[in-house]
Amino acid sequence: MISQSLLEEFQAKVGADNVFSEDTDRLTYSYDAAVLEPVMPGLVVRPATGEALGQVVRLCNQNRIALTVRGAGTNLSGGTIPIAGGVVVVTNALNRIEEINEQDMYAVVQPGVVTAKLAAAVEAKGLFYPPDPGSQAVSTLGGNVAENAGGLRGLKYGVTRDYVMGLQFFDVDGQPIKTGSRTVKCATGYNLTGLMVGSEGTLGVFNKITLKLIPLPQDRKSMVAVFDEMGSASEAVAAIIASHVVPATLEIMDNFTIRAVEDYSHAGLPKEAAALLLIEVDGHPAQVADDAAKVETICRQMGAADIRVAKTAAERDKVWAARRTALSALAKLRPTLVLEDATVPRSRIPAMVKAIQAISARYGLAIGTFGHAGDGNLHPTILTDRRDKAEWKKVEAAITDIFDQALALGGTLSGEHGTGIAKSCYLEKETSPATILYSRRLKAALDPNNILNPGKIIGG
Amino acid sequence: MISQSLLEEFQAKVGADNVFSEDTDRLTYSYDAAVLEPVMPGLVVRPATGEALGQVVRLCNQNRIALTVRGAGTNLSGGTIPIAGGVVVVTNALNRIEEINEQDMYAVVQPGVVTAKLAAAVEAKGLFYPPDPGSQAVSTLGGNVAENAGGLRGLKYGVTRDYVMGLQFFDVDGQPIKTGSRTVKCATGYNLTGLMVGSEGTLGVFNKITLKLIPLPQDRKSMVAVFDEMGSASEAVAAIIASHVVPATLEIMDNFTIRAVEDYSHAGLPKEAAALLLIEVDGHPAQVADDAAKVETICRQMGAADIRVAKTAAERDKVWAARRTALSALAKLRPTLVLEDATVPRSRIPAMVKAIQAISARYGLAIGTFGHAGDGNLHPTILTDRRDKAEWKKVEAAITDIFDQALALGGTLSGEHGTGIAKSCYLEKETSPATILYSRRLKAALDPNNILNPGKIIGG
Repeated sequence: MISQSLLEEFQAKVGADNVFSEDTDRLTYSYDAAVLEPVMPGLVVRPATGEALGQVVRLCNQNRIALTVRGAGTNLSGGTIPIAGGVVVVTNALNRIEEINEQDMYAVVQPGVVTAKLAAAVEAKGLFYPPDPGSQAVSTLGGNVAENAGGLRGLKYGVTRDYVMGLQFFDVDGQPIKTGSRTVKCATGYNLTGLMVGSEGTLGVFNKITLKLIPLPQDRKSMVAVFDEMGSASEAVAAIIASHVVPATLEIMDNFTIRAVEDYSHAGLPKEAAALLLIEVDGHPAQVADDAAKVETICRQMGAADIRVAKTAAERDKVWAARRTALSALAKLRPTLVLEDATVPRSRIPAMVKAIQAISARYGLAIGTFGHAGDGNLHPTILTDRRDKAEWKKVEAAITDIFDQALALGGTLSGEHGTGIAKSCYLEKETSPATILYSRRLKAALDPNNILNPGKIIGG
Repeated sequence: MISQSLLEEFQAKVGADNVFSEDTDRLTYSYDAAVLEPVMPGLVVRPATGEALGQVVRLCNQNRIALTVRGAGTNLSGGTIPIAGGVVVVTNALNRIEEINEQDMYAVVQPGVVTAKLAAAVEAKGLFYPPDPGSQAVSTLGGNVAENAGGLRGLKYGVTRDYVMGLQFFDVDGQPIKTGSRTVKCATGYNLTGLMVGSEGTLGVFNKITLKLIPLPQDRKSMVAVFDEMGSASEAVAAIIASHVVPATLEIMDNFTIRAVEDYSHAGLPKEAAALLLIEVDGHPAQVADDAAKVETICRQMGAADIRVAKTAAERDKVWAARRTALSALAKLRPTLVLEDATVPRSRIPAMVKAIQAISARYGLAIGTFGHAGDGNLHPTILTDRRDKAEWKKVEAAITDIFDQALALGGTLSGEHGTGIAKSCYLEKETSPATILYSRRLKAALDPNNILNPGKIIGG
């Protein structure tokens, strides 16, 4: 329990209005978007300045209180589930875009800036911040960096990691660490920037983030390819990649997901289709025209029954808005939705799709499959009811099978959702015992009292 | 000193033919391309298998012997200067390209593979490995990863860090660590891949490297823009970047460098020019045509006296070959050449060029300036004679001034040459005392006996 005197110390650091200890407040921050048991924190604090943030970190360390930093809590691996009785630091008051530098193409932001807000602000200046996680309308950049968030454009533009040029963060004692630069090249010191990306709040607390921007693509074209079989759609994905066209986005949706999305969004998707590919190519207008033609040819060769090209920006936006509702649409169908994130080399997408279908049949579970097929990152989504203990056992077995299958195909446990607490027990399957020990030594050295979001990534 | 019995243990691990203890052998590995005092190692070993490499690491740790891994030794910050009496592990027998996967666009290599050899092998398959450090004809990929090597194409294509998808490396005890994946997205575990890139052999020893490949650009166009003033050339660089054209390469050369290069390479460069910009644009043919026209317009607006477009591949290659001789050409002029690597945000290139000219005048030193202007990464190159103690004092003062100036302009100590031992004493200027302590805690945890290339990056 957090004592009254310590509570007053937090109030002195961040202001009495920014410390929350009521049951309802603590309940609000007891869970995130992962399907995991809620855990009640002892206190929620909301620093409004970087200085106060550093002091909160220091106070937690001095008092050996676990600290979990939270943006919007949209992560899907339990990375922001707090420790019982610990402190949740909410970043939504640290929401300033400090600089958008048009000449040198970078932005400096506080961690609580909402992803879509930065994307819109830079787009207004003719620039582009490509990482677009599904939750971008509410997710924060601090959370994106902590989880190394991906999105629909990973195929051509990479993920959050590829855009973090530098960081200012606090070590566990609240001391300021500076890593990286505003220059496009930087080989000074250890690449702590790289280490911090995806570290889920376990090695330090972000204060400022410098993000790389690029010029907006001149032109874009979106299309929907309709397939009679999930197999041929997945083979089209592998063929497009092998042809050396690099679409900005190359998404797949199975019939189960199509129907859920169409019922939810009424975007005009063909509900009878076995599978859809949603494709966007971008760049120079001539390249867009050539790439779109190549993609269309390949899709037809692979058996696409129909290809619909968006004729206007409004039509294009409608397709992508529909795609972005997939998670919400599926979530309406059953009480519990488990969204997995196993990722394979692109050429193995057809094999992974088949494996998921087999797992669905084996356990008699409804699994909707959609996701970023172009970068091998599928999101098999299991619909279930966690209160049904017999079915939940099957779900757990199915998840293990999905991971095993992804690893057998040369893939990874997580393409973009992180390890958190949901996958930490599987980590050794993919790496090695020595890798876990190496990671734990690193964590222990940088957080000797184990107060920075303990238990995430490496368990323990 | 390394005892006879220990020497025999090394022989047992790697074979007697692969252990070198003669003075001449040890002398060969006592220095690298940085201007620093040579240090004689006690032994040189050359493992021919990954297994033997791991055993060598373990043997060094068990016997508390410092270990420096060395590829071609082309680094410019002293990263491969050994510890007196320590072991140098040469990677040139670990030179196998294990896989080039065309479908999924990645390569797996041993650390001793020469950069240009991989580049040629993937180009033969229509793929592209963009990082092209100046020493690519001899440098190794292990060295490139350890130093996070850059090159001429950083502007559009990024640096080595941007192409390392995964690593297998040995921890200090010779245990295998696996990080990253063959998938384009991976958010599993800590981003140890990111941490290892640029860590200069201080945190582990690479065994296998998985590198991202991309499709070869369809078309390229190279041009040389001739300027009457260095100032207007540097302003043209900033204007090109601000116009949102992203050239593959955008290099600058001052008159001093032009004359040295032309005398050395006879490529037909205009020796009377105050400055040259060497520019390559690539991509879809229509984009190449548009970008080339834009670049030409901007150069003329900024006062270019002449613009020469390479008409054939042979003409193009001649320009770039000449550029690549800059270091060798300058090195012929005086006994000692100090190549600096300070990097600034691109818009500050004109200010940095002026500052270097002022520093040259202040100390009466010959400084040739060339480099990757498009990514803010200049290489001011001081020509001197290290034996001239009075002049060397001025050189040291000039180096400090160059660093201070780069930092004052929002830049960094090193764009691509790393920290090594040459810059470790300047690290705090750019970061903070806490950053150094954080880095040292990390190093101490992962290498408790401080045997992995001690003294590099963080000193001590």
